[in-house]
Amino acid sequence: MERHSYEETARLLQEIFTRMGAPVVEAALIADVLMRAEFRNIPSHGVMRVKDYYELWKAGRLNMTPHPEVVHETMTTAVVDGDNGMGMVPGVMAMELAIEKAKHAGTGWVAVRNSNHYGIAAYYSMMALKYDMIGISMTNANPLVAPTYSVSRLLGTNPLAVAIPAGEEPPFVADFATTPVARGKLAMMEKRGEEAPMGFVQDAAGHPSTDPAVITRGGAIVPLGSDREHGSHKGYCMSAIIDILSAVLPGANFGPFVPPQVSYLQPKPDSPGKGLGHFFGAMRIDAFQQTDEFKQMMDLWIRTFRAASPAEGQERVYIPGDIERESEQKLLKEGITLNPMVAEDLAGVRRELKLEQG
Amino acid sequence: MERHSYEETARLLQEIFTRMGAPVVEAALIADVLMRAEFRNIPSHGVMRVKDYYELWKAGRLNMTPHPEVVHETMTTAVVDGDNGMGMVPGVMAMELAIEKAKHAGTGWVAVRNSNHYGIAAYYSMMALKYDMIGISMTNANPLVAPTYSVSRLLGTNPLAVAIPAGEEPPFVADFATTPVARGKLAMMEKRGEEAPMGFVQDAAGHPSTDPAVITRGGAIVPLGSDREHGSHKGYCMSAIIDILSAVLPGANFGPFVPPQVSYLQPKPDSPGKGLGHFFGAMRIDAFQQTDEFKQMMDLWIRTFRAASPAEGQERVYIPGDIERESEQKLLKEGITLNPMVAEDLAGVRRELKLEQG
Repeated sequence: MERHSYEETARLLQEIFTRMGAPVVEAALIADVLMRAEFRNIPSHGVMRVKDYYELWKAGRLNMTPHPEVVHETMTTAVVDGDNGMGMVPGVMAMELAIEKAKHAGTGWVAVRNSNHYGIAAYYSMMALKYDMIGISMTNANPLVAPTYSVSRLLGTNPLAVAIPAGEEPPFVADFATTPVARGKLAMMEKRGEEAPMGFVQDAAGHPSTDPAVITRGGAIVPLGSDREHGSHKGYCMSAIIDILSAVLPGANFGPFVPPQVSYLQPKPDSPGKGLGHFFGAMRIDAFQQTDEFKQMMDLWIRTFRAASPAEGQERVYIPGDIERESEQKLLKEGITLNPMVAEDLAGVRRELKLEQG
Repeated sequence: MERHSYEETARLLQEIFTRMGAPVVEAALIADVLMRAEFRNIPSHGVMRVKDYYELWKAGRLNMTPHPEVVHETMTTAVVDGDNGMGMVPGVMAMELAIEKAKHAGTGWVAVRNSNHYGIAAYYSMMALKYDMIGISMTNANPLVAPTYSVSRLLGTNPLAVAIPAGEEPPFVADFATTPVARGKLAMMEKRGEEAPMGFVQDAAGHPSTDPAVITRGGAIVPLGSDREHGSHKGYCMSAIIDILSAVLPGANFGPFVPPQVSYLQPKPDSPGKGLGHFFGAMRIDAFQQTDEFKQMMDLWIRTFRAASPAEGQERVYIPGDIERESEQKLLKEGITLNPMVAEDLAGVRRELKLEQG
């Protein structure tokens, strides 16, 4: 399969977002967030998304020249209104603001409303690392998940990302959805005609199901934990906390009211908030202890976990972020490959926008 | 079974902790945290713990007259050294400090080292509610949990509690361990000669097991998610984040070095930190938006989720905190019953301390 470099692919994306009306710097930023997902081997949040964004924009549901604004502020907190821009623009602005506040006050916390899909959560949390801060990022998302004991789809796969600096070791970077499975993985199983394992989805009556397409027929994804016996109420709690911090706190739409991030689904009328929401945090390490002492201890933490005995049949124990970082190092050298359907979608969007084929 | 009122049981506990050397106010505080667990129907963190605490104290491993101290501080953050006291004493002090900081700066974040078992996490997060703040509480714990792909017990059941105020509705109170099952539940199954469901524990080679006693033979509890396919790496991430914030940040012992909270297990020599650790946060609602608007939206959130359609065979969908609050309301009227073994342990401790039988 053909391999594509970062520069080459980023340019193709940047041209698209520029043609859609984004200022050059913002188009580059949006492209960078998507490329970061590709190189960290999370293709569900990479180039695959371009067509969805494009269709949303064609439907008049994305503002490509947003002016995100701080609408409420204290020394350590702020609420940003994203002006209905693509999530990356208010997302980066809000995370930068959290970092700025942390520089002065020790910690900074910024919630965002009136935003849209922001790509991989880790992009924002990792921004804190170079300032020797812990970075936190979370977002709510399209409602596909039913709370424990329910059949109503009230929550998204609401991810949480936390990045923690280390010394000689690479940083700890956790980024995970609060469900056993991502929407994209189910779609892939459906296309391949595969069954889903038990514990991923439930049918319209709330019974466990192995049909990966059941969520298109009134079913739902279940929270992390899979069922009540195995702690799905804990996954429900996690997802609910992320929904409330990301949406109720800044006045965005919560749970079932999150505006769909695809053009073929319409936003609910009478939504109680504005757009979709995110929540960001930054904590200066030296607001708690000396940075070098912390980093030494963090190195020890990482080495202790890396030295853990693997289970039978396993080769190694991973630190959160290992897999994505190793992928990034490899793919930045080798280039990425695009799924043929994703490549065709990308070419189609470029054709419609009258851009030369890359 | 005999029913016991709050006052009666709290007095029995308070006398024990006073006799062990705690000042009256602190003995009352410790008793209150334990009683709160009983009435919220989390008996694994209630009176059942008294014997463990007593034995730890007899072994010289608990300081009953601690002087917790702020050892590092900024406008929004602090580290508290718990002086090896029972966790409730530095725990309440640290949460109060987080609230105090939030009053002035919008948010407050306090990490604690050199502490011990602090009871139910929700006790601390709920302290923020009356100030119209969101309260956050987490702690690390005895290492019983193996990271995904590993057989090494490196993490505790590390719980997270988040309390969020509402308006007319009761508050949202989530409090959950980051494992599918609590240690106490496994012990109960073992005593009853029951098998554990698949997805709770693994054996010494890392294979799934249904033996509830396998953790006494080199096995481990698995993280929330149960196995890699169902997202146990996400439960591992959650537990790791809580371990790092609670221990690496304040200089407490992380993961495998957490001092055992039972007298028959010895602390590891050459532990890198001090005692066990906690992390607390408080965020003023009006640091983000007008409190009454937030509360209205939070009421709507709660009503939306409460009105969700139950799955077939279920009667209702719960808001985090519903079950514990309803238990508390009921048991405060009716009184609690104590498991006969727990009652006998309590009587035994009182005998040894030469206290009259209650």
